[in-house]
Amino acid sequence: MTDKVVGILGGGQLGRMLAASASLLNIKVVILDVGTAGPAKQVVFPVSPDHTHIDGSFADPDKIRELASKVSVLTVEIEHVDADALEAIGNANQSRLQIHPHPSTIKIIQDKLRQKEMLQSHQLPVAPFLQVDSTPESIQSAIGTLGLPLMVKSRTLAYDGRGNYVVRTIDQIPDAIKALGNRPLYVEKWMPFSKEVAVMVVRTIDGDVKSYPLVETIHKESICHLVFAPFRGVANRARAIAEDAVRNMSGAGIFGVEMFLMDDGEILINEIAPRPHNSGHYTIEACETSQYENHLRAILGLPLGSTQLKVPSTAMLNIIGASSSMSEITSLTQVALSIPGVSVHLYGKSECRKGRKMGHITIVGESDAQVRSRLRPLLETLPNGSPEETNAYAPAPPGPGSGFPDPHPLVGIIMGSDSDLPVMLPAARILDHFKVPYELTIVSAHRTPDRLVEYSRGAASRGLRVIIAGAGGAAHLPGMAAAMTPIPIIGVPVKGSSLDGVDSLHSIVQMPRGIPVATVAINNGVNAGLLAVRMLSVGSPSLLIAMEDYMKTMEKEVLEKVDTLAGVGWEKYVVKRS
Amino acid sequence: MTDKVVGILGGGQLGRMLAASASLLNIKVVILDVGTAGPAKQVVFPVSPDHTHIDGSFADPDKIRELASKVSVLTVEIEHVDADALEAIGNANQSRLQIHPHPSTIKIIQDKLRQKEMLQSHQLPVAPFLQVDSTPESIQSAIGTLGLPLMVKSRTLAYDGRGNYVVRTIDQIPDAIKALGNRPLYVEKWMPFSKEVAVMVVRTIDGDVKSYPLVETIHKESICHLVFAPFRGVANRARAIAEDAVRNMSGAGIFGVEMFLMDDGEILINEIAPRPHNSGHYTIEACETSQYENHLRAILGLPLGSTQLKVPSTAMLNIIGASSSMSEITSLTQVALSIPGVSVHLYGKSECRKGRKMGHITIVGESDAQVRSRLRPLLETLPNGSPEETNAYAPAPPGPGSGFPDPHPLVGIIMGSDSDLPVMLPAARILDHFKVPYELTIVSAHRTPDRLVEYSRGAASRGLRVIIAGAGGAAHLPGMAAAMTPIPIIGVPVKGSSLDGVDSLHSIVQMPRGIPVATVAINNGVNAGLLAVRMLSVGSPSLLIAMEDYMKTMEKEVLEKVDTLAGVGWEKYVVKRS
Repeated sequence: MTDKVVGILGGGQLGRMLAASASLLNIKVVILDVGTAGPAKQVVFPVSPDHTHIDGSFADPDKIRELASKVSVLTVEIEHVDADALEAIGNANQSRLQIHPHPSTIKIIQDKLRQKEMLQSHQLPVAPFLQVDSTPESIQSAIGTLGLPLMVKSRTLAYDGRGNYVVRTIDQIPDAIKALGNRPLYVEKWMPFSKEVAVMVVRTIDGDVKSYPLVETIHKESICHLVFAPFRGVANRARAIAEDAVRNMSGAGIFGVEMFLMDDGEILINEIAPRPHNSGHYTIEACETSQYENHLRAILGLPLGSTQLKVPSTAMLNIIGASSSMSEITSLTQVALSIPGVSVHLYGKSECRKGRKMGHITIVGESDAQVRSRLRPLLETLPNGSPEETNAYAPAPPGPGSGFPDPHPLVGIIMGSDSDLPVMLPAARILDHFKVPYELTIVSAHRTPDRLVEYSRGAASRGLRVIIAGAGGAAHLPGMAAAMTPIPIIGVPVKGSSLDGVDSLHSIVQMPRGIPVATVAINNGVNAGLLAVRMLSVGSPSLLIAMEDYMKTMEKEVLEKVDTLAGVGWEKYVVKRS
Repeated sequence: MTDKVVGILGGGQLGRMLAASASLLNIKVVILDVGTAGPAKQVVFPVSPDHTHIDGSFADPDKIRELASKVSVLTVEIEHVDADALEAIGNANQSRLQIHPHPSTIKIIQDKLRQKEMLQSHQLPVAPFLQVDSTPESIQSAIGTLGLPLMVKSRTLAYDGRGNYVVRTIDQIPDAIKALGNRPLYVEKWMPFSKEVAVMVVRTIDGDVKSYPLVETIHKESICHLVFAPFRGVANRARAIAEDAVRNMSGAGIFGVEMFLMDDGEILINEIAPRPHNSGHYTIEACETSQYENHLRAILGLPLGSTQLKVPSTAMLNIIGASSSMSEITSLTQVALSIPGVSVHLYGKSECRKGRKMGHITIVGESDAQVRSRLRPLLETLPNGSPEETNAYAPAPPGPGSGFPDPHPLVGIIMGSDSDLPVMLPAARILDHFKVPYELTIVSAHRTPDRLVEYSRGAASRGLRVIIAGAGGAAHLPGMAAAMTPIPIIGVPVKGSSLDGVDSLHSIVQMPRGIPVATVAINNGVNAGLLAVRMLSVGSPSLLIAMEDYMKTMEKEVLEKVDTLAGVGWEKYVVKRS
């Protein structure tokens, strides 16, 4: 594939996954980190003596020089390396050594204030920020500008929430200085975001960028806890912002762009990591090419791989030490192995401790609902979990016939009026039977037109795959919904007091060219539910089998009646049935 | 996860992929094979001196004993090990050592005649066979029973086609004896199969079995060349046979069951491999749990993972040396990296030679058609490929409007009569526009009822996801098709000479409870095509985006007419349009 040897500064889990990915392409890697058999070194047995790993710190210039002498491309799995040393080594070996990302990029990332200034200078959205020094006056003055609460942040060596202090009242200023004052500081306006989201972006040597899907990230005690992909809604805008940010960096490789999503839909960049990122672990099982392989492809000048999801839905749960007990980790992974669609990654760390990332679990599934239901037993097993957390991120689906919507519906059942409910309920019953998650509500085209627009326009991005719409008379609901969403609409003509339902049928079925509605028989909610299941089976082999079983059961029921009729005789059969 | 250390006899590519899978679960492995850094050893750096690899042969009893002293579970990546030594070691270390699969299983597999006898004794389907000795008389007598041509096979040490000789005429008997006569022989009746298929089956220590999807395997010069999954049709029957065969083996682990599919639908077991298998490589990227991880789970007594596909379609291409030139391998992988959905696995072999397995390429996609189109440039690049081979396994899809069916259609367009063609062609045009593969044909419910049954019953297993059916008058085609397939049917009422199409509409839409037809407007083939695309978008995010674009284009076209109307004035506009 390539004769280039890659040197990695850092031998933790990110280095391990990079190295595992490299071995698929026969790419030789040499690891620099303290110790002889850390997570990354465990998965690379040096093929030749020239490629033995280095026992030393990635912040030690001599060790970096030693690594550089063995390889033709240097990269990092952590940004807290000696960037000055890297730059000097790069300058001294320009003809034979490439460094990705560029040391200047690593320097900008290492100083959060410079990072924010760089982003702002390219008109990228960030929270308002100010440089301060470690005096009460300086922070007091910043409060005058940015208000309270105020985020006081260390410019350097801050990660997993370390180096942040929230000043809520003026008398907390001395505490903040006490906690962080020995480092250079800056402050940020407090942004009450509604969600944290992230995008992995890969950048080629020529500066082309390609982004992965938008994901939602859930942090717990400031450490990445859960990731859900894809995050539905604002994806195109968020990916464009992330791509813009990475386009303005130097050097090739993968970047993790963490962002805040505000209540009003505004997106702010929080920070950027110039390396594979925890929020991109899911790409190993869920995307056509993983973040690790694309990082290698980028820094080696190979063609980038597709960043598309190859599964409909996915989640990642970090396995984080709750104490020094390894047995808690074992219990969690034991549960994980019993769940379909789950992949366990343990990082080979010999000791567990509170807050340490020991591994992660990826879950894939045919829908958000399936992924959340697979996640639930894992959250229930977490040593430091809670029922509240479990219900927040992996709620138990409501029981069939509960009358409450599933939190991750695939089908929306809507009707123009509550009087249509008797016709539409059988559709819900069918979805219950097939265990398809759905919601059911009233949307009147004529009496709630704004709601119709909102419901239809948002349907696809909320993850709905099919809408069943019932209406009577001048039945506009199915057709108008179809005009405002790309997903398929099933129309159920509801029989009114006149014209025997023919008015509804013709209103629904006779759509103009361009906008189809899948119309079923008058008042036939059952068939609408069954048609929704058939449509979903396009993306779900298990539903296809379930539909075959359903049809066999119907056949069997009729054949039993055949037997009964033959046994009883038709005269008696008629009496019995009447 | 487990404290057990796994010893693997054999350090080739199967050992490499086993070891890579083990590292995900922190399972320690020790490799026994000749050399210090073969494919498997490259991906395992021993964490402690107790776990260093062994340089020696997996057929050397002393070396196997040395391996056994270091580990608690022994397994194999190749069946040509010293099974007697394994058995003796197992007996001598019963309290602390497990061996999977059981040495008795390996012995049966090593002797193809005993393998066939074992299968036959369990009423499993195999080609008729006979034991022979290496004399002309013995083979002549077998020809009397089994006829010509006759497969003469070596009972032992036969793989990748070595050890087989086809006797087509009686005067070839001496040649067969010359080629194979120094080994114990048996003969098999010549079975002119229509396809070769295979199933991976995993067996727990308790004897429970679980099978992977049925795949089609294509051999070239008797070496596995291509694998396609899932193979549509006969899957349930083939998986049941494969599961039965493995249920009758001893010991845990994964087994590859290779089978012949005959023209009449009969399935015969060809042979079984008691280890991960080339036909199961695709499971790494395409299934919820790979064959490698499930082998480890099985032999360690951990819960088995799901064997389901997580992508709709997949293929695997072996990278096989065509000569000693490594550059041919590099060219092929370079092409592979430029194709979306492709994963390259190189095995770290330092030298290439003709017939050597150097790596493999897995392709995933949303449909068989997409997978084949991604495969095409790879077959075109093969150093020993040919246009015939490329067209056989990855045919170029027919151009839009060519009037010929795609070889891997997702949509079937059927109509009751050729007179319906003008109404149905617009549906085909829409599918061309969205690049959806389809076929188009005539199926008359009333005039070709047998064809209707055959077409409908076989639709899902052929890979069709949606059928568009057009019919007029007493329009039974859509509803009857719906009664015989679980996939969604779109009905297009075609207007006849009387009743203005209302007869067709009511015949199609008024289906009884249980069997839905998605009915569109009278004569509206365009909407049938668009509805099919919407349905397919349930399983294809890219089609969802394409449909959104289509709707925006429609909107733009109407808004342009608004402008024209405003600019020209409506009096002139009317004149212009008439």
